[in-house]
Amino acid sequence: MMASTFESHDPRSGEVIGRYSDAEDATIDAACAAAAQVGDALASAAVRVALLRTAAERLRAAADELHAVCERETGLSRGRLEGELERTCVQLELFADVVADGSYVEAMIDTADPDAPVAPRPDIRRMLVPLGPVAVFGASNFPYAFSVAGGDTASALAAGCPVVVKGHPSHPGTSELVAAELYAAAEQTGLPAGTFGLVHGASSHVGERLVCAPEIEAVGFTGSIAGGRALYDIAATRPNPIPVYAEMGSVNPLIVTDGALRARPEQIAEGLVVSATGGTGQFCTKPGVVLLPAGDAGDAFVEDLVGRLAAVSAGPLLNERILRALRSALSELERDGDVRQLSRADVAGGDGGGYLQAPVAFEVQAAAVARRPELLEERFGPFVLLVRYGSEDEAASVLNALGGQLTATLHAQPDEVSALNRLVALMGRKAGRVIFDGFPTGVAVTHAMQHGGPYPSSSSPLHTSVGSTAIRRFLRPVAWQNAPAALLPEALRDENPLGIWRWVNGELSRDPLPTSDAARRTAS
Amino acid sequence: MMASTFESHDPRSGEVIGRYSDAEDATIDAACAAAAQVGDALASAAVRVALLRTAAERLRAAADELHAVCERETGLSRGRLEGELERTCVQLELFADVVADGSYVEAMIDTADPDAPVAPRPDIRRMLVPLGPVAVFGASNFPYAFSVAGGDTASALAAGCPVVVKGHPSHPGTSELVAAELYAAAEQTGLPAGTFGLVHGASSHVGERLVCAPEIEAVGFTGSIAGGRALYDIAATRPNPIPVYAEMGSVNPLIVTDGALRARPEQIAEGLVVSATGGTGQFCTKPGVVLLPAGDAGDAFVEDLVGRLAAVSAGPLLNERILRALRSALSELERDGDVRQLSRADVAGGDGGGYLQAPVAFEVQAAAVARRPELLEERFGPFVLLVRYGSEDEAASVLNALGGQLTATLHAQPDEVSALNRLVALMGRKAGRVIFDGFPTGVAVTHAMQHGGPYPSSSSPLHTSVGSTAIRRFLRPVAWQNAPAALLPEALRDENPLGIWRWVNGELSRDPLPTSDAARRTAS
Repeated sequence: MMASTFESHDPRSGEVIGRYSDAEDATIDAACAAAAQVGDALASAAVRVALLRTAAERLRAAADELHAVCERETGLSRGRLEGELERTCVQLELFADVVADGSYVEAMIDTADPDAPVAPRPDIRRMLVPLGPVAVFGASNFPYAFSVAGGDTASALAAGCPVVVKGHPSHPGTSELVAAELYAAAEQTGLPAGTFGLVHGASSHVGERLVCAPEIEAVGFTGSIAGGRALYDIAATRPNPIPVYAEMGSVNPLIVTDGALRARPEQIAEGLVVSATGGTGQFCTKPGVVLLPAGDAGDAFVEDLVGRLAAVSAGPLLNERILRALRSALSELERDGDVRQLSRADVAGGDGGGYLQAPVAFEVQAAAVARRPELLEERFGPFVLLVRYGSEDEAASVLNALGGQLTATLHAQPDEVSALNRLVALMGRKAGRVIFDGFPTGVAVTHAMQHGGPYPSSSSPLHTSVGSTAIRRFLRPVAWQNAPAALLPEALRDENPLGIWRWVNGELSRDPLPTSDAARRTAS
Repeated sequence: MMASTFESHDPRSGEVIGRYSDAEDATIDAACAAAAQVGDALASAAVRVALLRTAAERLRAAADELHAVCERETGLSRGRLEGELERTCVQLELFADVVADGSYVEAMIDTADPDAPVAPRPDIRRMLVPLGPVAVFGASNFPYAFSVAGGDTASALAAGCPVVVKGHPSHPGTSELVAAELYAAAEQTGLPAGTFGLVHGASSHVGERLVCAPEIEAVGFTGSIAGGRALYDIAATRPNPIPVYAEMGSVNPLIVTDGALRARPEQIAEGLVVSATGGTGQFCTKPGVVLLPAGDAGDAFVEDLVGRLAAVSAGPLLNERILRALRSALSELERDGDVRQLSRADVAGGDGGGYLQAPVAFEVQAAAVARRPELLEERFGPFVLLVRYGSEDEAASVLNALGGQLTATLHAQPDEVSALNRLVALMGRKAGRVIFDGFPTGVAVTHAMQHGGPYPSSSSPLHTSVGSTAIRRFLRPVAWQNAPAALLPEALRDENPLGIWRWVNGELSRDPLPTSDAARRTAS
């Protein structure tokens, strides 16, 4: 039988700080049933805006209480947690803005056309509507921004979908506190209890039960490839398969050209160290594979980089499982004849009581990587693989050996850029976000952000889990044909009462329908 | 071992009219490899517009030759085929218009903001790019519009994705002729041969090989639930799963209120007979389940309807498999104690040499259907199940017993409509298109059309296979961060050289970027 309880730990010391129980089947089922009962309570845009804004307000007000628990459960610094909570609130507010604007429903109206080619055309009006209850899986590495009230929850609620979260077992206390603020925000907004639910689960059974619940219409997940793929496989074998939006692993290749290396080696090294070791290297967008030119300038850069990494103190990994996985991956690399070890892999923080890990770098030649793509696998934590390349073709072969990526980054000088079209195009084929002269960590919460990419960086290359368009994952189109005005959703009525952008007969407009078209509809 | 050859038949007589071979593995692999080699040849919008328009022109010019073969292979009437070919050409041209307009790439630009909350924000520009080679499975029931040059192919090519079609074995000769026009159109447009490919396959192995090909990035399918689900399952178990857009079964419930039945019984009966028996009842949107009020008016309507159906001549089903499946389903119903037989199920056309079938109706009470939802399963062909309901609650219970649907239709009088909000909302939850006082067949090719719905009517409720937005299925977002102008796609450049609609810092605009923003980007 599976374990029904689990412990939370302080990753800085390994100390047990709480005991929790996996949700029982009846509890999971009840949360899903309650979500399905919410029905049209979330239909009002004004109510959803209020819910999202109230949640942000409440989370900000609860910051001290949250950080005290979260710091112990995650080992993340107070400064980092403050930034992440604010980011989480900004994210809730961004989706409130998206809902308030209203154009996200992608309204399209084609008025009746008795003279259309092939056959007379009826009045057709289309918009996006909520999919239904969504299961969200919290991530360990962002206890606020990709967890209970994170981007998946915010975008699903914004879409009008009730949410059942499975909290990550690494921070159950934080999950409960955040959930309490969401419950309170729903109550304050007059929404039913099923609007939001939290279940705990350290065993895979809880997640499986949730994904199989007949009421659940979609799944949001951030975590490992193995975890995301397992949920994808479960959802795909349901009697009615449902979409799984899993944001999974990525090594986020970063390419430095010879020109950039010579022009600004210190700036690049400094940025790289911050990006690769921030949050103890546990960001989805950590640059885990860095392509550096062969030769003297590259050698000097590597030496400098290794020195800078050695100067970074060991930091806590989020849980023991992550520590063990990284140590095991590193000891494999230590024994690998193709790989040169640049740092000691077992350097911990000192007393050794917690899950501490110092930054680690290894080096390999591009030719070896092209031959053995498994060397490029993600190693979650403060680890960087430096890949030395001799030509643009070799750099391209390394990119080609990679699976889909969340990001790909290029550091190049302005005079080199025009010759790099081919490499940049390849980066766009491999990744969801292509970055120039910057670093992939620090995913801006903004409209145009793309956080997702070809498999295995995510399970659905068509979508993003950060940015305004994340709401699309939880919406489906419905068309109304020759509908009486009284039965049309407001977004599709002649007079455009919401003042939203709509495609009307192939033209984008915020205007009410011309009277002639409106009349034609009524007459048809 | 599997059969490697198959025959095509004239469904009006059963006569063998051609012998074809399943594509060999090497042929399938070569088609996929050629598709992957197309690369940026499809990147130019102008080239894609020319390809789509040329294909439409060529198909129109080849009409007589096409119809002669297609009529024999499908048994569909010349008039129907003429309409369907024109619809297919209009569809190619619609997507050419979408590409020419250019706004379908959903460009979004967020300029750099050093004062953004949480952290300074880089310049982020996002747009949709092609997914890569697409496998399309032709349907038996629309030899032009949902086959080799049908909506899936048109929207995939419009998106910039090369296409490999598996032709439907019911009309291989038609498939080859249509493919020849697509090959010629590609050649005429200067595109490589891999832009489009056709493979034959009557065995499931061909489809499986195609869906598993590593070069294929998405699948479009129209056909049965069993067929679509099989492809979905295969794609989901690939090392890298890919999206399958399968448009599958639907019984398209049509509800007639007591008011509508009394006000316009003949008009409804006449429309229903045309919609249920057109193309020998083999449309995806055939109204297969019709909800009629209990009582005298309903009884009289049923009697009239049965008489009208009996007056419709038997028509050819597309192949022997469809005939056998329908006959087997009908003989099960004949033996069912809950179902009342209104027409003889075995009425064929006369000499019995072909796959002819006359229209058939059965009747059942709503209470029985709610108890035994399997009675509502799709029976492909000229079959209608009349469900008699006593109250709105009973009608709702029938809808609730159904899986996801392509369409749901309501015939009601204006004075009834305001009381039917709940039923109409339920129709929107169950179906992708909600129709008022009309009939579901005759899917208009227009921007706002939605042809797809919750499972099992389609495998992806987020998408449509008809209408402009069908292009979305084959596109994925990419964001460029702080990209030098020279490396940005045209759609994302400051000056907006394509003149497309873009979301710039949260506002929709066709203007070039304000100089201040452009300058900020350059400075960042």
